[in-house]
Amino acid sequence: MRVALHLAYNGTHFFGSQTQKETSKTVLGELENVLKKLGIEQKVVASGRTDKGVHATMQVCHIDLPPYWDDMEKLKKVLNKMLCDALHVKKIIHVKDDFHARYSAKKRSYRYIITTKQKNPFESDFVTFLEDVNLQQIQQNIGLFVGEHDFRQFMKTGSDVKSTTRIIYRAFAYQHKDYIVLYFEANGFLRSQIRLMVGALLTLTKDAIQAQLNGTKKYKIKPAPPNGLYLSKIKY
Amino acid sequence: MRVALHLAYNGTHFFGSQTQKETSKTVLGELENVLKKLGIEQKVVASGRTDKGVHATMQVCHIDLPPYWDDMEKLKKVLNKMLCDALHVKKIIHVKDDFHARYSAKKRSYRYIITTKQKNPFESDFVTFLEDVNLQQIQQNIGLFVGEHDFRQFMKTGSDVKSTTRIIYRAFAYQHKDYIVLYFEANGFLRSQIRLMVGALLTLTKDAIQAQLNGTKKYKIKPAPPNGLYLSKIKY
Repeated sequence: MRVALHLAYNGTHFFGSQTQKETSKTVLGELENVLKKLGIEQKVVASGRTDKGVHATMQVCHIDLPPYWDDMEKLKKVLNKMLCDALHVKKIIHVKDDFHARYSAKKRSYRYIITTKQKNPFESDFVTFLEDVNLQQIQQNIGLFVGEHDFRQFMKTGSDVKSTTRIIYRAFAYQHKDYIVLYFEANGFLRSQIRLMVGALLTLTKDAIQAQLNGTKKYKIKPAPPNGLYLSKIKY
Repeated sequence: MRVALHLAYNGTHFFGSQTQKETSKTVLGELENVLKKLGIEQKVVASGRTDKGVHATMQVCHIDLPPYWDDMEKLKKVLNKMLCDALHVKKIIHVKDDFHARYSAKKRSYRYIITTKQKNPFESDFVTFLEDVNLQQIQQNIGLFVGEHDFRQFMKTGSDVKSTTRIIYRAFAYQHKDYIVLYFEANGFLRSQIRLMVGALLTLTKDAIQAQLNGTKKYKIKPAPPNGLYLSKIKY
């Protein structure tokens, strides 16, 4: 019986989402360890990976449950009692047997949060503090990313993917109280793509971003820090 | 030239405040490392220690500066640029040569924050989530701690102190939005004293707390978790 788990996590406490041989302190590693204690020895498949320090208000993954686990509310409660406080199961729902957390995903949304407020140590895991941000310029340029593009110049080097083309359906920026939020929705994202797009929006001109996107020029972009980034929705 | 530094820190990122031989990831270890890079090789003296996971909205410490560091605003700026994001210097002020961050301190205040809100991974480093809290009962019993008492039964075992008597000047609890705040002000606190007092307030009856305080009975108290605790003020 296949189920989808909706997770929220504080990326500060994990070395990324993906299981690693070197450490169990990854999101899926933690989840697999706890499932194992319940006798559920399963590889957990997520919609995609998030890097070290990146958060999720909603990540989706799937597992196949043994038939005697039929009370999803109870399983959720048990898991949340056993999981570390940085990882929380929001929902567990039955899905069809051919549902695949990664391959069935149609859209993925992320938010990136920046503030020009005075730095404080209690928010530094959750937002990116910058002295000066030009929201108007970001709002003017963020639309350049919308549509189907080859994002090869907005990808962490060393990534191994078949295609570097992705479709961004929506991208916009807005202010909410003291925070500037950049929103991106796409069929998928390359490794570090959002952090590199945010980095470009913060440092490059419109023409430079356009040239980087067309592949006519190559600027060295510093990726924005991971702690401002949230995986916020997966649509199937 | 002696100066006092007012610090704020997110205790999640440190193995406590006190320097340790095994790790530099302590609050004072981090500060001493950065000062060293500026050519200021000084042992930093704090008002008192905080445990692993405990936060400070205001901790005070002192150092002796070489005379060429005379611009405190500049020093603060340089330090905040070099220190990790979990540690922030709020203020640096000149003090008299006989000022001692620990021995000159007259009062110390702490806040402990609890919530019955639904658990979420983004606040779990900063508040203690409990399913059920009886605020009225806490408000009735917290006053038992006020005054001069021998707190030997509210101290982490293995602590080595000359006297276990402390004077609590004020102790009260209040609700602020979704949070319950317990406030304690004393001439000083023993190791883990506040976490043990909060633990007692959450689990023991009035008579039991009184007996534990009088030393007529000994209950096993589980200390409240460190992540809800904030050192919030030192008065000199």
